[in-house]
Amino acid sequence: MLPVPDLSKFRCKLPVQLRFNDIDILGHVNNTVYFSFYDTGKAHYFNAVKHGTMDWQKVETVIANVNCTYMSPMFFGEEIEVYTRCISMSEKSFVLLQVLREKNTGEVKSVCETVMVCYDPRRRESIQMPEQWRKDLYEYERHDIVDVRKHMQK
Amino acid sequence: MLPVPDLSKFRCKLPVQLRFNDIDILGHVNNTVYFSFYDTGKAHYFNAVKHGTMDWQKVETVIANVNCTYMSPMFFGEEIEVYTRCISMSEKSFVLLQVLREKNTGEVKSVCETVMVCYDPRRRESIQMPEQWRKDLYEYERHDIVDVRKHMQK
Amino acid sequence: MLPVPDLSKFRCKLPVQLRFNDIDILGHVNNTVYFSFYDTGKAHYFNAVKHGTMDWQKVETVIANVNCTYMSPMFFGEEIEVYTRCISMSEKSFVLLQVLREKNTGEVKSVCETVMVCYDPRRRESIQMPEQWRKDLYEYERHDIVDVRKHMQK
Amino acid sequence: MLPVPDLSKFRCKLPVQLRFNDIDILGHVNNTVYFSFYDTGKAHYFNAVKHGTMDWQKVETVIANVNCTYMSPMFFGEEIEVYTRCISMSEKSFVLLQVLREKNTGEVKSVCETVMVCYDPRRRESIQMPEQWRKDLYEYERHDIVDVRKHMQK
Repeated sequence: MLPVPDLSKFRCKLPVQLRFNDIDILGHVNNTVYFSFYDTGKAHYFNAVKHGTMDWQKVETVIANVNCTYMSPMFFGEEIEVYTRCISMSEKSFVLLQVLREKNTGEVKSVCETVMVCYDPRRRESIQMPEQWRKDLYEYERHDIVDVRKHMQK
Repeated sequence: MLPVPDLSKFRCKLPVQLRFNDIDILGHVNNTVYFSFYDTGKAHYFNAVKHGTMDWQKVETVIANVNCTYMSPMFFGEEIEVYTRCISMSEKSFVLLQVLREKNTGEVKSVCETVMVCYDPRRRESIQMPEQWRKDLYEYERHDIVDVRKHMQK
Repeated sequence: MLPVPDLSKFRCKLPVQLRFNDIDILGHVNNTVYFSFYDTGKAHYFNAVKHGTMDWQKVETVIANVNCTYMSPMFFGEEIEVYTRCISMSEKSFVLLQVLREKNTGEVKSVCETVMVCYDPRRRESIQMPEQWRKDLYEYERHDIVDVRKHMQK
Repeated sequence: MLPVPDLSKFRCKLPVQLRFNDIDILGHVNNTVYFSFYDTGKAHYFNAVKHGTMDWQKVETVIANVNCTYMSPMFFGEEIEVYTRCISMSEKSFVLLQVLREKNTGEVKSVCETVMVCYDPRRRESIQMPEQWRKDLYEYERHDIVDVRKHMQK
């Protein structure tokens, strides 16, 4: 179970649009739909980090782990926003932290942590995180990212 | 195959948000996703017709037929809008006409015609279209709706 | 509104698995989900026609039109099968007819007609239907396909 | 990151059907689709535990947390099975462990742990886990479930 993070640290925020068929038999947004919101938030984040130069045909990361806490149900008609930031980096992977929140009430609906691995789609194997990616992420997050490599060297 | 309708006749327009997982192996929005855009457009339309008083837990219509023409593929990053209007009414059913269009280029991506039937969810059968619905639709569409009943009486 | 076709003419039948999140707020399979059933039926059909040699990375057809009639709702727990056959061919396109039916009761849930166009993904334009495709479809359907070209020549 | 569990301990196994539109731009099953497989596995599991008497209109649990590790991509044409078991119970919640595996190669594709909370949909709050549920789960899993309450009492 993830705690609610400090939202003032997130620079990237995107409104997500609920679709009528996102709602399940309970009248809530179905739990599987949260991941399309988080995915769309990730795409928006990468585009922001890359200053709009992201090439969606060239996907160079894959998801290794998703850990998602459901705090409160989402209903059709609510205005939901997804917050995204990178919190740590390692040799070949990095961690994104994301939050779904209702815009008007400020209610946090869900928190999600995703481990993403840099990946060569042709050779189908993980690769070192490109230096340019590191630089772009550091710059976008104003150096507020834990570099796990440095911690391990200590 | 449906023709492109006159867009100046549509009063209801809604931007739809593409999700990263809407994109299929061809790099296009998958053909099944169009219907969640159209569905979301319908929900927005009913809410506009009902002046925001729509109760999403009380669904009183079901879809009897969908006829959808695909004109041009949609890509991630495009700004898509869905246009919705009612074009005809009958005893128990009415017809919605919808268009998906790229906002910036004006390119029409798809046109869809849906026959909706008024429905009693408890008795699970079709019912007469409520008079209030007729009035609301007429008013919203400024009387530019074909009433099939009148045509049949002639 | 499409009529129920003669099911004895369909050689291709596939059970489809309902997922829990296919069910919407009404307790039915959501109308947008029907198209993923039909899509999966098409993939199975093409694989049967091609004797299992279909290459899913090389998609050479696109959907031009879908016309779907909803006859009866589908519920979680029902055993649904999708029937698929080709009913006509033209210069660049062909028409698939599909049916969703409950296996135990025989109840027809939906009928769908799809116009598919042969397509070159690199040049992004429609192409003549390859002769091998014609032959494979004719053979699979035991020549019970209307060739629209011949009808037009008369 | 979750380890691969001992599959011999799972009594509940369900083949899941891949749909053509589950495949994303990389040619893999999209990461968001895994959760509809896991959800469908859960529904099957509850039905097995309840000896087929599950009422799908009366949902009495909600998901509090999902932790999913992606080990290997899934491709269209692969035969995937979802394994489900309950590994622990607490006052108001229990934990399901699930695995997605290719049937022919035995390759483990993904492992997922879900915390589910017993829930009263009318009052919209968590409730004590009903005794009958406890008994049913214990019996189905042949008492191989950790009861967190007992551990905490020690």
